[in-house]
Amino acid sequence: MRREIFMSRELPKDILKKYETTFSTVELPSVEVNRVAPKVTTVTNKMEKVLPTIKEAVEKTGLKDGMTISFHHHLREGDFVFNQVMAVIKEMGIKDLTLAPSSLTNVMNEMVIECIKAGIVSHITSSGMRGSLGEFISRGGMENPVILRSHGNRPRAIESGEIKIDVAFLGVPTTDNYGNANAVYGKSVFGSLGYAKVDAQYADKVVLITDNLVPYPNTPISIPQTQVDYIVEVDAIGNPDKIGAGATRFTKDPKELKIAETVKDVIVNSPYFKEGFSFQTGTGGAALAVTRYLKEEMKAKDIKASFALGGITKPTVELLEEGLVAKVLDVQDFDKGAAEGMAQFENQQEIDASFYAGPHNKGAVVNQLDVVILSALEIDTQFNVNVMTGSDGVLRGAIGGHQDAATAKLTIISAPLVRGRIPTVVKDVTTLITPGSSIDVLVTEIGIAINPLRQDLVDIFKNIKRIPVFTIEELQQRAEKIVGVPEPLQFTNRVVACIEYRDGSLLDVVKEIKPYKE
Amino acid sequence: MRREIFMSRELPKDILKKYETTFSTVELPSVEVNRVAPKVTTVTNKMEKVLPTIKEAVEKTGLKDGMTISFHHHLREGDFVFNQVMAVIKEMGIKDLTLAPSSLTNVMNEMVIECIKAGIVSHITSSGMRGSLGEFISRGGMENPVILRSHGNRPRAIESGEIKIDVAFLGVPTTDNYGNANAVYGKSVFGSLGYAKVDAQYADKVVLITDNLVPYPNTPISIPQTQVDYIVEVDAIGNPDKIGAGATRFTKDPKELKIAETVKDVIVNSPYFKEGFSFQTGTGGAALAVTRYLKEEMKAKDIKASFALGGITKPTVELLEEGLVAKVLDVQDFDKGAAEGMAQFENQQEIDASFYAGPHNKGAVVNQLDVVILSALEIDTQFNVNVMTGSDGVLRGAIGGHQDAATAKLTIISAPLVRGRIPTVVKDVTTLITPGSSIDVLVTEIGIAINPLRQDLVDIFKNIKRIPVFTIEELQQRAEKIVGVPEPLQFTNRVVACIEYRDGSLLDVVKEIKPYKE
Repeated sequence: MRREIFMSRELPKDILKKYETTFSTVELPSVEVNRVAPKVTTVTNKMEKVLPTIKEAVEKTGLKDGMTISFHHHLREGDFVFNQVMAVIKEMGIKDLTLAPSSLTNVMNEMVIECIKAGIVSHITSSGMRGSLGEFISRGGMENPVILRSHGNRPRAIESGEIKIDVAFLGVPTTDNYGNANAVYGKSVFGSLGYAKVDAQYADKVVLITDNLVPYPNTPISIPQTQVDYIVEVDAIGNPDKIGAGATRFTKDPKELKIAETVKDVIVNSPYFKEGFSFQTGTGGAALAVTRYLKEEMKAKDIKASFALGGITKPTVELLEEGLVAKVLDVQDFDKGAAEGMAQFENQQEIDASFYAGPHNKGAVVNQLDVVILSALEIDTQFNVNVMTGSDGVLRGAIGGHQDAATAKLTIISAPLVRGRIPTVVKDVTTLITPGSSIDVLVTEIGIAINPLRQDLVDIFKNIKRIPVFTIEELQQRAEKIVGVPEPLQFTNRVVACIEYRDGSLLDVVKEIKPYKE
Repeated sequence: MRREIFMSRELPKDILKKYETTFSTVELPSVEVNRVAPKVTTVTNKMEKVLPTIKEAVEKTGLKDGMTISFHHHLREGDFVFNQVMAVIKEMGIKDLTLAPSSLTNVMNEMVIECIKAGIVSHITSSGMRGSLGEFISRGGMENPVILRSHGNRPRAIESGEIKIDVAFLGVPTTDNYGNANAVYGKSVFGSLGYAKVDAQYADKVVLITDNLVPYPNTPISIPQTQVDYIVEVDAIGNPDKIGAGATRFTKDPKELKIAETVKDVIVNSPYFKEGFSFQTGTGGAALAVTRYLKEEMKAKDIKASFALGGITKPTVELLEEGLVAKVLDVQDFDKGAAEGMAQFENQQEIDASFYAGPHNKGAVVNQLDVVILSALEIDTQFNVNVMTGSDGVLRGAIGGHQDAATAKLTIISAPLVRGRIPTVVKDVTTLITPGSSIDVLVTEIGIAINPLRQDLVDIFKNIKRIPVFTIEELQQRAEKIVGVPEPLQFTNRVVACIEYRDGSLLDVVKEIKPYKE
């Protein structure tokens, strides 16, 4: 259904030419794929990998114009690595780089904008972007469209060579002088190195940036010495207190609490809430509330989960501690509590991004996921979800694991009907991020809407009186009644970002915001 | 020096043609290498990977004539997997396979011989072979020469595509139904999956054979679900009590004890015995005695090691328990005690074979190794070591990690001057396995010989009166005096095995034993 809308958007031919396929289905077929492998400069002796400065490391890697560099975003708004490295690269005058981080956070924005303006960065692929960088890109600040990929699509693109990382700069809270690194010990502990592990495996050159050199051999080994070329010690790689900035606050907003309770009710009444179920709740105030409510239900009904997945927060680790969840699988940790749990609990297991959600390996964890709760900036009457552009059409989000985890058996979108004067439930999403065919239930503060593709769920919930069920069109109309019909957004024909589906097909594009007429 | 001897052996041209390079140096230069990657058939849903029979698994992998299959030898003489799988393949009538296990143990011999005779196996690469298979090959039982590679050379060959594994059959003591496997839990626990991890990463198809299916998700994850195609449950994958058969017995042989004590004396008086040193002692009665003596010295002098490496035995794990060693790095475990330690001790770290000794990654652990004790069937006056062929010229050994670990700063060969009527110290080794330029000291029951390349060690030990120092020629003459000069071995011109050095260059060949004239 969505496909026709998509095709009618008159996508520029030069963009379409770059893609073999446009999006067709969320039910990915099994295919045979060829992988690529890095070019390795062998280390055959006890060579000193520790270099005194980032500059020396950049020089030794042979980084030059036109290459691709990568970073991880595990330290999120507390990251100090990106700006330190980019400042050096900028000073060295290297041009025309492709920036391929696992994602970009606000703390990196000004540096990225400067580097684009100076011609240092000419291409970007990321999970998302926000704030000033989103504005800059949306208003046409960069010549080449940004490519936005999910956390599962990125490792796929790396494994297939679509992203060929020449040099990866990876911040690690602890490493020895030969490159055995983990993120579970040290002053800047952030838990899982899930995104970074893929870069270390596939980049030609790998530079670790650390603020904590420890004696050889460092264990546990998240990134092994066999993948590391150089190491630089700096004063600080980040401020781990800022990883979760805001994300771990427990909401007191009655609307959020109402939504969280309904999400819990949907889960508990679904066929998936049974011994051994699995879930991903994600981050944000409402998600934490869901985890808390779910915990009470699990205790009351004596149901234990087999695993919790995703970006992990402390409340999920507490479920592990209480024996309500058998295993926690961390591709990322959203707060210090979760990060510290990684060193403490044997059953909190680090996984890499391909293992988490890669669609082109022999089976990612998302394939095993029963229940996921995801957010939305917009959801339309086809259940299509936008988590990328705001109501003003500006880039202010990230795909993250949204497309990937939405393949769960029960995918719940938790979102308010409206936010201030902005409707969440709309006729058409501004930007298509996760196709409606993988969304099962929308939960709002006034009730739920079930995707008609899930007649089994429709049948179950029509008998549960305390959960008001609407059609998605009814919810859209309710939203419209509250805030009216917004003026349609004005875009130019220029594409500023390509949205890929997790299999690498072209799903949508983001166009440049039309400048205001003065 | 050795090179000339080697080149004078009139190597058959057809063998030389297969090799780009012949051995030149143990000091491997840093080179730029391209890796290969597997062809992956993607699993995009919760597909059932567990199949009812090995036969069905073999069929699903698409195994056909001419392909390469692999196994690991972690279960050593207790392995039940190899014979179960090969019996099925044999019955299915698949021909002309290349057998590429990490090594072959005696328990596999009869099956391999049958498969060679039936044309099912036409090529073999292994770390070694013993018993009836060694006899069979040495007497010309197979048309194509066997290729013998060290534990570090094998991953190099796999990473470079010289060994392209089509299907790996890997026994695991525990896995879930999606393929997350480890060897630290279950009834057939054998500890590290170090050799198998490389196969799982590079084989096109990976079949796990287990006797212990556990709930999803299984952790810790040694082999991840992302690398596994199929799983078969069998009654038993092995008898873990037979892993170490004999290897963990503490010797009472006074000659062995004398050698062990001198080895300890050499280590303790070397410049490497200091806080933070590292070592690999290996297996066998004398090695265990060395570990015990070393422990006493470490306690007495308050010296702690940074790590112990290699095939690990329980006495080494005891050093970890007592705080005398900070970390133990296990590529393999030689007894149940060491295997069980893997689940128990955080600082006992599983490493893969490439990490252990791969010469073409960004730095293996052997590069960091201070002291290693290795054995020898023969050692010659150039300090060249043979651990492959017996005094009768028959294959009866394995390279193992010998070439790899010999690159340590202090490489000690511990061996008796003679064994029965057979000299150990000889003028020329029958088969060259580890070049003399990487051997530092030979320890025998009557004293030691120091490689003249190590003048620093010569200078140190000339002042230590309680350790008798001989030249290697003197030791050879002493051995000759005891047992006389053996009749030279009679070989045909046919090559039955190629010996590679760890970098993949051709080091030596083993020729067919000349049949007895009746």
